[in-house]
Amino acid sequence: MPVSRLTAAVAFGAGAVLGGLGGIALYKRTQKTEVIVPHVPATLPPTLPTDVTEQPVHKAKEIMKFGFPGPVSDLLYRQAYVTSYNRSLRNPNWVAEHLTAATLEGKSNSSTSLIVVDEANLDKPDRSHSTFREDLRIPRLFRAKLKDYVKTGYDRGHLAPAADVRDSQEAINETFLLTNISPQVGKGFNRNYWFYFESFVRSLTKVFDDVYVITGPLYLPKVGEDGRSYVKYEVIGDPPNTAVPTHFYKVVLGVKGKEHALQGFVLPNEPIENTASLEAFTMPLDAIERAAGLVFFPDLNRLAYKPLCAVTKCDITHMLEASKKASKWRL
Amino acid sequence: MPVSRLTAAVAFGAGAVLGGLGGIALYKRTQKTEVIVPHVPATLPPTLPTDVTEQPVHKAKEIMKFGFPGPVSDLLYRQAYVTSYNRSLRNPNWVAEHLTAATLEGKSNSSTSLIVVDEANLDKPDRSHSTFREDLRIPRLFRAKLKDYVKTGYDRGHLAPAADVRDSQEAINETFLLTNISPQVGKGFNRNYWFYFESFVRSLTKVFDDVYVITGPLYLPKVGEDGRSYVKYEVIGDPPNTAVPTHFYKVVLGVKGKEHALQGFVLPNEPIENTASLEAFTMPLDAIERAAGLVFFPDLNRLAYKPLCAVTKCDITHMLEASKKASKWRL
Repeated sequence: MPVSRLTAAVAFGAGAVLGGLGGIALYKRTQKTEVIVPHVPATLPPTLPTDVTEQPVHKAKEIMKFGFPGPVSDLLYRQAYVTSYNRSLRNPNWVAEHLTAATLEGKSNSSTSLIVVDEANLDKPDRSHSTFREDLRIPRLFRAKLKDYVKTGYDRGHLAPAADVRDSQEAINETFLLTNISPQVGKGFNRNYWFYFESFVRSLTKVFDDVYVITGPLYLPKVGEDGRSYVKYEVIGDPPNTAVPTHFYKVVLGVKGKEHALQGFVLPNEPIENTASLEAFTMPLDAIERAAGLVFFPDLNRLAYKPLCAVTKCDITHMLEASKKASKWRL
Repeated sequence: MPVSRLTAAVAFGAGAVLGGLGGIALYKRTQKTEVIVPHVPATLPPTLPTDVTEQPVHKAKEIMKFGFPGPVSDLLYRQAYVTSYNRSLRNPNWVAEHLTAATLEGKSNSSTSLIVVDEANLDKPDRSHSTFREDLRIPRLFRAKLKDYVKTGYDRGHLAPAADVRDSQEAINETFLLTNISPQVGKGFNRNYWFYFESFVRSLTKVFDDVYVITGPLYLPKVGEDGRSYVKYEVIGDPPNTAVPTHFYKVVLGVKGKEHALQGFVLPNEPIENTASLEAFTMPLDAIERAAGLVFFPDLNRLAYKPLCAVTKCDITHMLEASKKASKWRL
């Protein structure tokens, strides 16, 4: 699929229907010129409800006598990331990281860290010592399972990449928990373009003092032959209940002194040509928020930040070359 | 669609793949004899994580410096129901009610109620005075909107039915908030079988002292021609972002003295023949929980309750007749 179509496919939030293209109609931004210039919303972020105290909670005691139907999501804290896990889709809702040049060199160990180092690997934390694991914090009924992935053809794709974590073997191991994993197309995506994209994000620690990244899956609609919009995604496992996202987003915030630069990206979960422009996958923040049902970096002043791709070059060309040398961190 | 296929379609959680049927393969329970006898799980409900204090929360302060990406869901308390709203799907996750003979006669007003009565309707709270409203408690970006439904052909289907609420005009009005609404097929479903089903649930207040009901949407997979399982649902609105559920569930708990009777039902969001057996739509509780990502009535002893359809007759025949007289509460 050429880049222009990918861009159109993901720009679902901002535009008009383009009409049937190969049987599947795609969305398109109303202003084509916006494709390159990243979007900075001129509005404040969505506010959260503040009038909870006005709710008739006393009534709930009668209605909910036998308990609430459990959380829809689980909030999980790890050494190197924080994630919200979706019990119905058996994927993360989002995974948040904080990267700096120091963390990527494994120099961020602080006295407050609760690090358990595998004694056999004291010298070098290494992802080759990690194995994918089911997350026992999730009740079995809602847990993504290793067997869900068997013979599906999908990779177990990290959302917080293992290569972002160098602090300790324990911290790397945690990135292999299935609560940090989504089914991803391997060849051409997880093992290639998405991997180079992850390398690009790491490279931003050379430009910014602090890089905050939020990564997650999306389930985006397409227009069917009947002109109506449908979300369609595969589910794997037996019974089938682990969703295969149609797209993945990353929202990247770079901080240098008082400068804040922010960019949203949305990539389809399918093979992408190495030659595809990374800027073609930029997406207005509010479009990602609308689809994900989330507010990214709510404490950030939205009127003050700059588009990250205007501050630094959004390009994966260098990553392509570098990745050939860094095979250890690949896959 | 004949009842047997509907039953097979919703019994996704318990069985083997049936194979292609009219181009779409459906799921089937392994034991056909179980279709009539409701399922009582012999296991304890899924446990919730209890080791939150062990999580490295101190790390999160660095990672989440600019705030958490908001809740995935909103918990909303109303006079007559409690609901969890899904910001991504723009549908409820669940809506919980508590019905008794007294509430259905409008005799449950207690001194603790915060009831605002429309002075023009002091005598008779009536749904004909209510209008559908967007829920201002939900941030605009995530709010289901009235215009989402225009010209889609879908009804604005109540999950907590207006007819379940008689206490006050205010309480009835609250059932018209779009956070209690999902897109439902009108003819043959919302206006017919689903309506009779709701009437059946109300009739249970004649059998039990207390009836607790949890209602919600489901997005269930079907097997495609390629043998893989896919979830496919329409999304309405412009941009399209309000999901049209493929199915709806009700989990009904009847309490009489020390007796607890419970039953799960799953109905497809499509026309159902009036002659269809309600028992054919019963579903094992854990299958609904697996699909919804929820635990229903977690404080209830699962080893002690009886199948509701074994305690009382699960049948809508009477409702069909009664509904012709009670046209006021129809639609």
